Amino acid sequence: MEEGTVRMIDQRRLPCDFVIHESRDYLSTVACIRDMVVRGAPAIGATAAYAMAQAVLAYDPVSMDDFQVYLTDAAREVKSARPTAYDLFYAVDRLTGELLRSDSLEAARENAIVESASYADESAGACKRIGEVGEKLIGDGSRVLTHCNAGALACVDYGTALSPVRFAHYAGKDVRVYVDETRPRLQGANLTAWELLQEGIEHYVIVDNAAGYFMSRGDIDLVIVGADRVTREGDVINKIGTYEKAVLARENGIPFYVAAPATTFDESLSSRDVVIEERTPDEVLFIGDRRIAPHGSGARNPGFDITPKRYVTGMITEEGIK
Amino acid sequence: MEEGTVRMIDQRRLPCDFVIHESRDYLSTVACIRDMVVRGAPAIGATAAYAMAQAVLAYDPVSMDDFQVYLTDAAREVKSARPTAYDLFYAVDRLTGELLRSDSLEAARENAIVESASYADESAGACKRIGEVGEKLIGDGSRVLTHCNAGALACVDYGTALSPVRFAHYAGKDVRVYVDETRPRLQGANLTAWELLQEGIEHYVIVDNAAGYFMSRGDIDLVIVGADRVTREGDVINKIGTYEKAVLARENGIPFYVAAPATTFDESLSSRDVVIEERTPDEVLFIGDRRIAPHGSGARNPGFDITPKRYVTGMITEEGIK
Repeated sequence: MEEGTVRMIDQRRLPCDFVIHESRDYLSTVACIRDMVVRGAPAIGATAAYAMAQAVLAYDPVSMDDFQVYLTDAAREVKSARPTAYDLFYAVDRLTGELLRSDSLEAARENAIVESASYADESAGACKRIGEVGEKLIGDGSRVLTHCNAGALACVDYGTALSPVRFAHYAGKDVRVYVDETRPRLQGANLTAWELLQEGIEHYVIVDNAAGYFMSRGDIDLVIVGADRVTREGDVINKIGTYEKAVLARENGIPFYVAAPATTFDESLSSRDVVIEERTPDEVLFIGDRRIAPHGSGARNPGFDITPKRYVTGMITEEGIK
Repeated sequence: MEEGTVRMIDQRRLPCDFVIHESRDYLSTVACIRDMVVRGAPAIGATAAYAMAQAVLAYDPVSMDDFQVYLTDAAREVKSARPTAYDLFYAVDRLTGELLRSDSLEAARENAIVESASYADESAGACKRIGEVGEKLIGDGSRVLTHCNAGALACVDYGTALSPVRFAHYAGKDVRVYVDETRPRLQGANLTAWELLQEGIEHYVIVDNAAGYFMSRGDIDLVIVGADRVTREGDVINKIGTYEKAVLARENGIPFYVAAPATTFDESLSSRDVVIEERTPDEVLFIGDRRIAPHGSGARNPGFDITPKRYVTGMITEEGIK
């Protein structure tokens, strides 16, 4: 954020076009999260922190009491943008708490700028640390499977699942990545492949159907994915298809790691209470403008699934592997 | 086949357009198999039988010795169209054997017409019987998952995996089908959904990533898929992604059936010797004309996978469940 404007890569336009989207007020920033200009749990968290800062900067001063009501309303609005990524709720609650403690509106404005930037910096730092921690799991010559996009685009920088891959590459290790294309929204093909290409890391896009085949042939050494939210019980809510890959990894004796910063862990949520976001059937029935199923066919489109902890070899966090 | 012309639905045009493709000579018919105008193991088998008949009808008489050489060459050509579906090889070998036994060229021409029609009739009969046998596995209110297209389009009629679903529907049972879209070529969304819509059978298209999610929620009662080839050991070569669904079904305690006629069982092939067809990366990197991964990204595109017998609850064949 600079001078109240949040700048972000429009992820809907990749890999064809690299467009920087500018958002000048907090409601536009909320719309960017809702419409998936920006996606990925840590990136959503940082964007939400900036949205809270924008809300404060736009506040027309009345009184501290009024400010508290205004800020609480803004927090509710930002939280409504997407239902799953816990980082969104964590970031909004943290910023709201810090801003409500301000002594004056002047201090609140200053805090808004400092604390949102600090949130983003810490988030990038956590992802960097995840890379340093996770890099040790990747041997020279390793073939890593990943699902969806949990790279720098999904974060402030470095990525979660891709951060260890990046650091392994920086360390001079030969690492190759099998990239699930990740239907319905194709974040693997569109975004992960794009990021790996920028970094010069060798990779192959595969259809989601082919991951098990490559695992069964011994072509995958480990799986690393990100997370949208981790429940109290340690179960992992992530992009639809993650559960399939976890089951297949265990069946084939392949380590399955989830990379996620502390901001993704929701101690308040029990797995029993998880509600999975079901998105529009059109994401399944159409690819771009092209209808792939006949008029009259129905579709079901869960956006996420839940991978029970027993399938997870370890969580790669900024505090080490858990 | 009528008057030497083979007529088939152009499956590449569905679900948008219903186009009947006509092929007047055997090399064009081979091209239809190669280019996937027609696909699906039993349909490929019947089309290959008609191609052999067309070859015979087009033979310019020289001598019976010459005819034998000609027929052997034609058989080799037809077999070269696709590598996986065993029905292709079975049909060509059966037709070749029958035609070579002809006493005269006149008799060969007559046999060509009779035997190719007879092959197609038997194939349809086998699929009908598969439906009657498999229907008993489908209780009223069942929710069936299927992968790819193993319906009437893939066969002469009825289908393999979809035949039991059809017969359950005809018997008045409430049956709903979850249809894997089946990337990369989307035969589930394009073809299976189209067939089910014609029959008025309730269905939902899902991305391949979502099958495990619905299984884990208890939303799937059984899985039925087809097969391109079954090895001597009873392992199943079928569309990429079949293996994933089989592993997930077993993990979730869901019966996993493979529906296939005798013409798909290859007693001569050991699973150790299976070579999986790897198709062009463009099927992954593009959807229709739309590039989904950046220029410079690689892709891997196995067309089939192998599902070990231990994951298969039973084979639904025209002779019963094995």
